[in-house]
Amino acid sequence: MSKPYKRLDKTQAAVLMVDHQAGLLSLVRDIEPDRFKNNVLALADLAKYFKLPTVLTTSFEDGPNGPLVPELKAMFPDAPFIPRPGQINAWDNEDFVSAVRATGKKQLLIAGVVTEVCVAFPALAALEEGFDVFVVTDASGTFNELTRDSAWRRMSEAGAQLMTWFGVACELHRDWRNDIEGLGTLFSNHIPDYRNLITAYTTVKGVK
Amino acid sequence: MSKPYKRLDKTQAAVLMVDHQAGLLSLVRDIEPDRFKNNVLALADLAKYFKLPTVLTTSFEDGPNGPLVPELKAMFPDAPFIPRPGQINAWDNEDFVSAVRATGKKQLLIAGVVTEVCVAFPALAALEEGFDVFVVTDASGTFNELTRDSAWRRMSEAGAQLMTWFGVACELHRDWRNDIEGLGTLFSNHIPDYRNLITAYTTVKGVK
Amino acid sequence: MSKPYKRLDKTQAAVLMVDHQAGLLSLVRDIEPDRFKNNVLALADLAKYFKLPTVLTTSFEDGPNGPLVPELKAMFPDAPFIPRPGQINAWDNEDFVSAVRATGKKQLLIAGVVTEVCVAFPALAALEEGFDVFVVTDASGTFNELTRDSAWRRMSEAGAQLMTWFGVACELHRDWRNDIEGLGTLFSNHIPDYRNLITAYTTVKGVK
Amino acid sequence: MSKPYKRLDKTQAAVLMVDHQAGLLSLVRDIEPDRFKNNVLALADLAKYFKLPTVLTTSFEDGPNGPLVPELKAMFPDAPFIPRPGQINAWDNEDFVSAVRATGKKQLLIAGVVTEVCVAFPALAALEEGFDVFVVTDASGTFNELTRDSAWRRMSEAGAQLMTWFGVACELHRDWRNDIEGLGTLFSNHIPDYRNLITAYTTVKGVK
Amino acid sequence: MSKPYKRLDKTQAAVLMVDHQAGLLSLVRDIEPDRFKNNVLALADLAKYFKLPTVLTTSFEDGPNGPLVPELKAMFPDAPFIPRPGQINAWDNEDFVSAVRATGKKQLLIAGVVTEVCVAFPALAALEEGFDVFVVTDASGTFNELTRDSAWRRMSEAGAQLMTWFGVACELHRDWRNDIEGLGTLFSNHIPDYRNLITAYTTVKGVK
Amino acid sequence: MSKPYKRLDKTQAAVLMVDHQAGLLSLVRDIEPDRFKNNVLALADLAKYFKLPTVLTTSFEDGPNGPLVPELKAMFPDAPFIPRPGQINAWDNEDFVSAVRATGKKQLLIAGVVTEVCVAFPALAALEEGFDVFVVTDASGTFNELTRDSAWRRMSEAGAQLMTWFGVACELHRDWRNDIEGLGTLFSNHIPDYRNLITAYTTVKGVK
Amino acid sequence: MSKPYKRLDKTQAAVLMVDHQAGLLSLVRDIEPDRFKNNVLALADLAKYFKLPTVLTTSFEDGPNGPLVPELKAMFPDAPFIPRPGQINAWDNEDFVSAVRATGKKQLLIAGVVTEVCVAFPALAALEEGFDVFVVTDASGTFNELTRDSAWRRMSEAGAQLMTWFGVACELHRDWRNDIEGLGTLFSNHIPDYRNLITAYTTVKGVK
Amino acid sequence: MSKPYKRLDKTQAAVLMVDHQAGLLSLVRDIEPDRFKNNVLALADLAKYFKLPTVLTTSFEDGPNGPLVPELKAMFPDAPFIPRPGQINAWDNEDFVSAVRATGKKQLLIAGVVTEVCVAFPALAALEEGFDVFVVTDASGTFNELTRDSAWRRMSEAGAQLMTWFGVACELHRDWRNDIEGLGTLFSNHIPDYRNLITAYTTVKGVK
Repeated sequence: MSKPYKRLDKTQAAVLMVDHQAGLLSLVRDIEPDRFKNNVLALADLAKYFKLPTVLTTSFEDGPNGPLVPELKAMFPDAPFIPRPGQINAWDNEDFVSAVRATGKKQLLIAGVVTEVCVAFPALAALEEGFDVFVVTDASGTFNELTRDSAWRRMSEAGAQLMTWFGVACELHRDWRNDIEGLGTLFSNHIPDYRNLITAYTTVKGVK
Repeated sequence: MSKPYKRLDKTQAAVLMVDHQAGLLSLVRDIEPDRFKNNVLALADLAKYFKLPTVLTTSFEDGPNGPLVPELKAMFPDAPFIPRPGQINAWDNEDFVSAVRATGKKQLLIAGVVTEVCVAFPALAALEEGFDVFVVTDASGTFNELTRDSAWRRMSEAGAQLMTWFGVACELHRDWRNDIEGLGTLFSNHIPDYRNLITAYTTVKGVK
Repeated sequence: MSKPYKRLDKTQAAVLMVDHQAGLLSLVRDIEPDRFKNNVLALADLAKYFKLPTVLTTSFEDGPNGPLVPELKAMFPDAPFIPRPGQINAWDNEDFVSAVRATGKKQLLIAGVVTEVCVAFPALAALEEGFDVFVVTDASGTFNELTRDSAWRRMSEAGAQLMTWFGVACELHRDWRNDIEGLGTLFSNHIPDYRNLITAYTTVKGVK
Repeated sequence: MSKPYKRLDKTQAAVLMVDHQAGLLSLVRDIEPDRFKNNVLALADLAKYFKLPTVLTTSFEDGPNGPLVPELKAMFPDAPFIPRPGQINAWDNEDFVSAVRATGKKQLLIAGVVTEVCVAFPALAALEEGFDVFVVTDASGTFNELTRDSAWRRMSEAGAQLMTWFGVACELHRDWRNDIEGLGTLFSNHIPDYRNLITAYTTVKGVK
Repeated sequence: MSKPYKRLDKTQAAVLMVDHQAGLLSLVRDIEPDRFKNNVLALADLAKYFKLPTVLTTSFEDGPNGPLVPELKAMFPDAPFIPRPGQINAWDNEDFVSAVRATGKKQLLIAGVVTEVCVAFPALAALEEGFDVFVVTDASGTFNELTRDSAWRRMSEAGAQLMTWFGVACELHRDWRNDIEGLGTLFSNHIPDYRNLITAYTTVKGVK
Repeated sequence: MSKPYKRLDKTQAAVLMVDHQAGLLSLVRDIEPDRFKNNVLALADLAKYFKLPTVLTTSFEDGPNGPLVPELKAMFPDAPFIPRPGQINAWDNEDFVSAVRATGKKQLLIAGVVTEVCVAFPALAALEEGFDVFVVTDASGTFNELTRDSAWRRMSEAGAQLMTWFGVACELHRDWRNDIEGLGTLFSNHIPDYRNLITAYTTVKGVK
Repeated sequence: MSKPYKRLDKTQAAVLMVDHQAGLLSLVRDIEPDRFKNNVLALADLAKYFKLPTVLTTSFEDGPNGPLVPELKAMFPDAPFIPRPGQINAWDNEDFVSAVRATGKKQLLIAGVVTEVCVAFPALAALEEGFDVFVVTDASGTFNELTRDSAWRRMSEAGAQLMTWFGVACELHRDWRNDIEGLGTLFSNHIPDYRNLITAYTTVKGVK
Repeated sequence: MSKPYKRLDKTQAAVLMVDHQAGLLSLVRDIEPDRFKNNVLALADLAKYFKLPTVLTTSFEDGPNGPLVPELKAMFPDAPFIPRPGQINAWDNEDFVSAVRATGKKQLLIAGVVTEVCVAFPALAALEEGFDVFVVTDASGTFNELTRDSAWRRMSEAGAQLMTWFGVACELHRDWRNDIEGLGTLFSNHIPDYRNLITAYTTVKGVK
């Protein structure tokens, strides 16, 4: 009767980053800019860290929406990048869907700007086609909290699971012993409080 | 097991604007007045832009609830306008239901004041009769957030999909190439940040 | 697949006011005291206005929880009043359940303090026995918003419908023409903005 | 011992609009975009309505800061417009100061983006030169509330008076009878609640 | 060097209630309507309780601003009531100033709608003429918190003291023994938490 | 069709406290530290009061995550305590699962830090194995409200019931008469408002 | 020209705790109960730790205001305790003023409930008599933030310095080396985050 | 009568960074961690960019307060760094004061953790000695907003000017033409919205 537990598996997951464009980012007001930038880069870092196939796409990037933010372009030089000529729902673009299918993965981690359009539309379409959809909510932004709440509800009721980048990283990693250094670095770079814990710990450890 | 993805289709959708009256608007305190006015007019503009059949109605407008706001009256001179003599639920008024049915549309976009009554009651009734209901949450207002949250939950659990005007516009339009100018103008008129993107873009484009 | 639309019917509804006691009220911090007092009295007024059978109960009122607030006692001198000797869930008290059953009503409007206990426990029990439960969320209070949100979710997922007193009044009344004066007075007494609309309207109407 | 009451006088006042540029506006996050746009246009409208000399300036507008928003350019075609080649403090630009002095006014109404720089710097400089400075706080925006509060305190302690556009309009107008229609229109165009009051009033007045 | 302590004295104080009109009240959004209504009535009640001379005034009440709220009219049938024909600053109306002077009091308690105009303007003017001004901040309302903060700062820097109705009542009363019953009733009627304390106390006291 | 009412039963319930570690606690920012500390200790106290079998576990406690907070260690000297060598999901640790199974209980009360990982992962796993899961939301903390909301939704949709420690205590206790003193002490120690009620009550009771 | 720097000196300071009574505490809603209780006890602990003479007083404690909270009574068995028979301003009570004078201290640390009355009135009176007044803002509570802000402004403009208990402790202590253990314990008992730092630090230190 | 305009001058200014230590940072809860980290690093970057002499200090760094965050240590390898053995007020440490005096600067930019102690104490002491003090409010953090507001008021009334890092950078730079590239880089690295403006601008500029 309840939604079953779909557990993220690093061999099954792909990341879709949808419309993180320089212009569109100025529309995001449900998350502070410093935090949002950090969340998006954290998701990108974890995609690389876990070697998840990643697909990038933009909407109408030769107009006011602006180009994909350069950091993402630089981090995924070899990832499929599909600048859509006009389709608002990325899933309406065949190249994008092909790129997603080509990853061979069933679990899709989706993030984008703005949440109720660039995330929700492909998420709903992917669910309809039988993919398991995990929305990375804190790497997705929109106009305000009212808009976000409406969008979350729509996706969630359609079967999507709402997660944040930290939860995704933890569910993919499973066990610290797989790579303490690597996961610690990811957290240190994107969670100031965690970085401070590490600094304090290693200092005392080292000094004594 | 999950709620299926109902995708808005401009050939299938009608807009119902319920009780946006000068008196009742002073009750709305879950959205700031400047933003709320903008959202309501944005929904009206998109209804016209996509040529969606639109039905207007008011509750007891010869009393303190006050008249329909003049902007809406002026924008839809030929739309069916049903001033209800007393029914609180617009769906209890036969003329209103007939007007809705006469549109021949299955997808109903509903907005109104106040959310838990003027929106929720006809939304629940329409769902019961098999319509697909999309609540335009940000063009609907009420007393406070507690009230709104209760209302959203009730409608959503009954099968309504919660959207905002921007999401509606994007889902109806499907592809920028259908009319770049038109959609851009709609956004420019109702999203200050988007207007600024366009201004900055066209200035640089033109100056260089 | 969705929760069906249960529509409130004044011939089918009863009101349960659970533990609105002088001591317990000091625990309520998710709604401001002026507003909460107003909401509780509004619910009481509407119970009287629609002549809904009403059942009052208190928890351990000879201790720190304190007595039922005197206004409620005064408004319902003939209503069944069940001071529970110890049961925390009112539904565990046979006198209370008998009083509820004796109303002969199927639709239960429940409000109380605190939401996650005094409201949620009898609400869940009543749902289990087949009653239709409508929680009057804004006449129910608790420690903070986190607590409230948890409680709402639990009740709502068990089948309860979340409403506020204004929505309840409107759904019960159905049509202004049933009694314009009466409903207007109820709103004027409990919604300052509505009272102002009436004042402004009648002044202009009368002066001209 | 206290700051003396400087009363705005429409024969003594000039308006300085500093750096309301398309790019810089995306930095404003202490006021919602819909409201901020409205406030800025309201200030511009009142400047025109009271025929106050107005000076416009921009900072480095050929770069990312972007052009002056077109609405302002269009509303003040004959006003001095000083695009500063580099000075961050407009008061460091001689053309700007000359334009201000040329107005012959002693009371300066200043608004701009961002508050702690584009508003505060010229405000402090003008105070030092003996002008009476009135900061129009709600037509001035910045990164967040912490930044705003710091800036307000600095200006206020230096002798500036903090006002909002509505207070400015009222203090300049002095008496409704000077022009009921004109002031009413200004308010109706920029205060949705006031517009609704007028709509409701005139409807009842006219219908009876 | 600091602002001296002006202590309220019931033989020296008068109350000025400025523009609490049915229309204007819909503009108040910095305080919730239930609370604001309560605060205004609490101030009126304390004016009566301490027998402070009270002056009422309205701005342009035959238009959209609407009439003085009827409760105030009813509570002060014999108080001077000056409907101003057009002056926005009540202090520009000679009848109003005469009525204030006729009270023979030096300490003025001022409250009104909206704070930055109807309160601030007469407050600043009265300070200039040497009155001691006490703004009753919680019985004064305006558009939003940004506006309120600007207005408070302006008045406070000009020498006004900011108080709330409860502080005013306590400073005027000085000693519970002057009239325990009377002050207790005032608090019980306007502070729900205090009413509950009294209910709980007297119940235990009486029952034991 | 709705989620059935699972009622907590003190003979059926066990408590799992997951990763309340000195380092990890500095990550919690969705609940204030004073309140969060109180909530965690309240849950521990109720576990002891109702003699519920309790299982403690930590994640990688020899690193920056830090040790289990000493209060918990001291309160449950004989409880199974499983410091996990690396598994992020406690349910992936066989010792932990064995300890849970060894309690012989079907109803699991889970709290931990951080909510979306240390609570959500074992909660989802336990649900899958047929346990009834009750998340103690206010004794669980995480980075911010966005993260919390995502996590609540995921667990709730999978079948977990969201409760707070106070609701848990009340549902387990059932009837004040089972032990007035004991429950009163629990509340007095962890709810300042309740403590004040008791103080006031017993004082009047005793003095009269 | 600015307010001079008065530095707290443990040989010059006394603590006045005004009206922290069981009933009155239920009025405090500008600070959460868990935090407020902690702050008040932290102030009491620091008074004891630095051996500052402390004066306790209550207002009308045989009525609904309730008794002094027992913790304070227990912590200061030998301190002067002046239950005022009726004076609202503690400074109007000769015994209280005598007790303050008897401390021989010039620097008064004042905290109480409610801020704008029980704290502000004696603070203003003491300033007038030449004492240096330090308001411990976070151990003082009132109805809401609007009320608090008004009160802070009034006291601050009259010459009071606003501090919080942590700042007071640090300014009195001057140098950690005076007593590392003692100050650390004070912080550990009242700042959960600091306690965690100590736990983590000493654990690593000890284990290595 | 007002506080005079002290204008920052890059030849006159020094930066004091007080107690930005890994442990103490976990106490900061009035600014989000992502933003706070960014603000602190932005201040450090601007100190380097404008070549301002910078003094670093820590409080008791061999205990739970933890070491200076490594980023700061790395950025200022040659700056005076004074780990204080115990003095809480850095100004009580002679080495620190000597280091400040050795800069030969009169304008001190101070930031630190926590605001009401590590910033306020040396700020007040420096003011007393005739320095011009500029508090960099957004690179200073503390427990909560109540604490911050008290601290701001105390420093501001003693003569300090409250600024934020962005305002500081702009006031020091004076004119974009002094170094467009340099200032742009500083903003791009620490203001995500500004970075997006630059990206969008240069993309259009370059592509056309």
